[in-house]
Amino acid sequence: MTQKKSEILMDLALRKSIFFPSAEIYGDSFSGFWDYGFYGTAIKNKIIDCWRKDLVEKEGFVEIDGAQILPEKVFVASGHLNNFNDPLVQCEKCHSLHRADSLLGEEFELTEGTPTERFDELIKEHKIKCPACKGNLGKTRKFNLMMGVDVGATGKLKGYLRPETCQNIFLNFSRIQKTMRKNLPFGIAQTGKCFRNEIAPRNSILRIREINQMEIEVFFNPFKINEIEFFNEVEDFEVRVLLEGKKKEELIKAKELVSKKIVSGKLIAYYLSRLQQFYEGLGVPRDNLRFREVDSEERAFYAKEGWDFEVETSLGWIELVANNYRTDYDLKGHSKTSSTNLKVKEEDKEFIPHVYEMSAGVDRTLYVLLELALREEIKKGEKRLFLSLFPKVAPFVAGVFPLVNKDGLFEKAKEIYDNLLEHKLNVFFDSKGSIGKRYARIDEVGASFAITFDFDSLKDNTVTLRERDSTEQKRVAINSLPELLWKLSTQKTTFTQIK
Amino acid sequence: MTQKKSEILMDLALRKSIFFPSAEIYGDSFSGFWDYGFYGTAIKNKIIDCWRKDLVEKEGFVEIDGAQILPEKVFVASGHLNNFNDPLVQCEKCHSLHRADSLLGEEFELTEGTPTERFDELIKEHKIKCPACKGNLGKTRKFNLMMGVDVGATGKLKGYLRPETCQNIFLNFSRIQKTMRKNLPFGIAQTGKCFRNEIAPRNSILRIREINQMEIEVFFNPFKINEIEFFNEVEDFEVRVLLEGKKKEELIKAKELVSKKIVSGKLIAYYLSRLQQFYEGLGVPRDNLRFREVDSEERAFYAKEGWDFEVETSLGWIELVANNYRTDYDLKGHSKTSSTNLKVKEEDKEFIPHVYEMSAGVDRTLYVLLELALREEIKKGEKRLFLSLFPKVAPFVAGVFPLVNKDGLFEKAKEIYDNLLEHKLNVFFDSKGSIGKRYARIDEVGASFAITFDFDSLKDNTVTLRERDSTEQKRVAINSLPELLWKLSTQKTTFTQIK
Repeated sequence: MTQKKSEILMDLALRKSIFFPSAEIYGDSFSGFWDYGFYGTAIKNKIIDCWRKDLVEKEGFVEIDGAQILPEKVFVASGHLNNFNDPLVQCEKCHSLHRADSLLGEEFELTEGTPTERFDELIKEHKIKCPACKGNLGKTRKFNLMMGVDVGATGKLKGYLRPETCQNIFLNFSRIQKTMRKNLPFGIAQTGKCFRNEIAPRNSILRIREINQMEIEVFFNPFKINEIEFFNEVEDFEVRVLLEGKKKEELIKAKELVSKKIVSGKLIAYYLSRLQQFYEGLGVPRDNLRFREVDSEERAFYAKEGWDFEVETSLGWIELVANNYRTDYDLKGHSKTSSTNLKVKEEDKEFIPHVYEMSAGVDRTLYVLLELALREEIKKGEKRLFLSLFPKVAPFVAGVFPLVNKDGLFEKAKEIYDNLLEHKLNVFFDSKGSIGKRYARIDEVGASFAITFDFDSLKDNTVTLRERDSTEQKRVAINSLPELLWKLSTQKTTFTQIK
Repeated sequence: MTQKKSEILMDLALRKSIFFPSAEIYGDSFSGFWDYGFYGTAIKNKIIDCWRKDLVEKEGFVEIDGAQILPEKVFVASGHLNNFNDPLVQCEKCHSLHRADSLLGEEFELTEGTPTERFDELIKEHKIKCPACKGNLGKTRKFNLMMGVDVGATGKLKGYLRPETCQNIFLNFSRIQKTMRKNLPFGIAQTGKCFRNEIAPRNSILRIREINQMEIEVFFNPFKINEIEFFNEVEDFEVRVLLEGKKKEELIKAKELVSKKIVSGKLIAYYLSRLQQFYEGLGVPRDNLRFREVDSEERAFYAKEGWDFEVETSLGWIELVANNYRTDYDLKGHSKTSSTNLKVKEEDKEFIPHVYEMSAGVDRTLYVLLELALREEIKKGEKRLFLSLFPKVAPFVAGVFPLVNKDGLFEKAKEIYDNLLEHKLNVFFDSKGSIGKRYARIDEVGASFAITFDFDSLKDNTVTLRERDSTEQKRVAINSLPELLWKLSTQKTTFTQIK
């Protein structure tokens, strides 16, 4: 492709309303908020369904859904009120605002803990000016990224929109553990929105202010970090890692991550493996992914060990999932601030469980899957654009089309459509325009198959089933469709296996 | 039941963590926010799935998912900045805050449009005092129920958490209509959170500050309000209505709602019917539901015709869905304020489409389904509590249990569980405690069936399938389970039909 993939995707996203700026009819001053249209919503929901099935249900974890607005004390305890800041600098001439760390660039080792004075020194030393007008920059100040909300009419109840979904999980840990009668290790999962007041949102849905997350917090006994039931299932699985200080990714077996003490224990190697398997299952090739070891300077303030799961795109490596060993940081903080006992008793020992977290961005996952699936090809002299998405994350499994809208073909195709819906198959009906255009339209949004009811169908009760990537067509019996599509959509059957 | 149903349900909800106060370890000052635990999340997701299937996909509507924070201009245009207020009054002695309309009660015809002076007059005239301390009340002021948010670091971008999910739909109408190539009438649906700064949240998840909604806005040509494709499917359907000024509900056929001019046109009668069918399908008996005609004084500021869909519970009639004929109010407002053309062209005529809305509360739907499903019975001298939920809204279809955890029964039961998950059946595994206790535990949260793998299963490859309500058991072949549970969960087969 001559044009950059990210640009082609952006064109496509806007043209098909996969995702687009929120409230766009009111202009673009309010940046960092995006809406999903029909296809985007469908793909997003499919990604969440896959996560729920593969990483939550199969692991025996418990999903909850909590409030987005939480009282201030929660963020005193979590440390966000003090620590969740970006260094902000304002131009004295044009008054534009900038992130001091972004202006200075990556060569300086700037972290969450760097004091504001250090930024001022560096800005002075390297003669950094305003990128907009070349004016002088003022003093750096810390800008808290949480969005505050006044709750109720008294003006006395201060809340914040959660900056990460996991706080509900920590707050509810004790209750959920008891009512679900779970022994450690066990995980609580949550998907939903979180909010970060980014100073400079950018790259469409990659750096935004309103974020969709899927988070899992695994609670465990720190003395039993090497006791994890199904470790044997992953011990030979090759995890692709970029170790601290190394320039090149390498494949290391899960058991070696443990034996070479690259990770703190089997539990971490197990979930790194499961997460990589999950993303490979969504369609990310192994060569495009890695776990980047996060060094101590760069780690979040609550993390003892961190692995950023990243995927390579035309915009470089993008972090999709933060994997953090948060120790007992969170439960200890909430226990202390709320004066609640959050300890667990095991074999007469009482302790605060440790936490391993997999915090995934839904929006970034969606972006990456679309960019990796983007294909352009010339076929019979015509340019064809399509999204080669796996059926399980396609916005719908199949389009159902009557060849023409006469002689009862419309009604018969509609019957097939209704029947497939009844079988909980995600299908889409379209009867407008030439059949070629209808194919092209669903190819572009990544639907896997097209079913066409034609004149022969009236005679022999078969339809054509067309595969998106190869554009190959086969005739199949109408009554075989539900089972066939189920198998195709779970990748138990490939198109070539269909007789 | 001697105890009030709402109290029994609240006990159960807290005990099983179906729903519970958010951030409860920090006390109860921050009221009006609730979290859903495992069972609540599952039931909530099932309700949304049913809505998506029955009211969105089957109608050929388009679902979107938009930002929750929207710029101020949106709410200038929508009228919420001026009109979305509650009359607030403060006690001069104890400083407690109250809603003036609640203090006065229902006998006065107080509406959104009532001026604050009128409240002051009535309070004086009827000598209303502070309900907390009997002190004198101050002057009534308007309190806007939207929660404001500062976006970005400049302090100049004012946003609000959306007070209803539908504004995204209006903002995106034109884009979605074009990219989805839809003719009128067509609907856009959205589910997600909205936020209302209630002065006095109460009744657990019934009056809350963070609300889950499922909304559909149907856009149509006002000159064609009687042209709706599948009206014949509902014309004889009996809609249960409470007409303005009447004391008693009555059943009126959809076609009569139109011919007697009780509704503005067929389109409205059609969707009233579909909505009632949807809720009956979720398990609300016809005798417990009604569409209450909302009179002009009480209607929302944007509505020309309104029908509140209500369900009777132990707490009285509860509004679950606001059905409003919003005319061109919203699109006209946004078109004007944003200087965007939101007209549609049909047969050379240009016009702003009219809107019919079905705005449903997810939390209230969940509450009502649970309360209606609550059963207490004495069986063999023991009290049994269970939720008689329809399988499609049960937190899971079936529990899978090994009778005991030895002789390979655990592993075999786990195999069945994994296989059912593979078939996208929502199941739950439990191996702890006596089998009777395991039955009781899933009965209480409304799971429909229990599958037990026992010693006979090892010999003949059958398991016992137990039905929650009757507690009747049948032996069925293991390999028939996936199809059988699918049919049972979509109510195509009843338990008595199983041989």
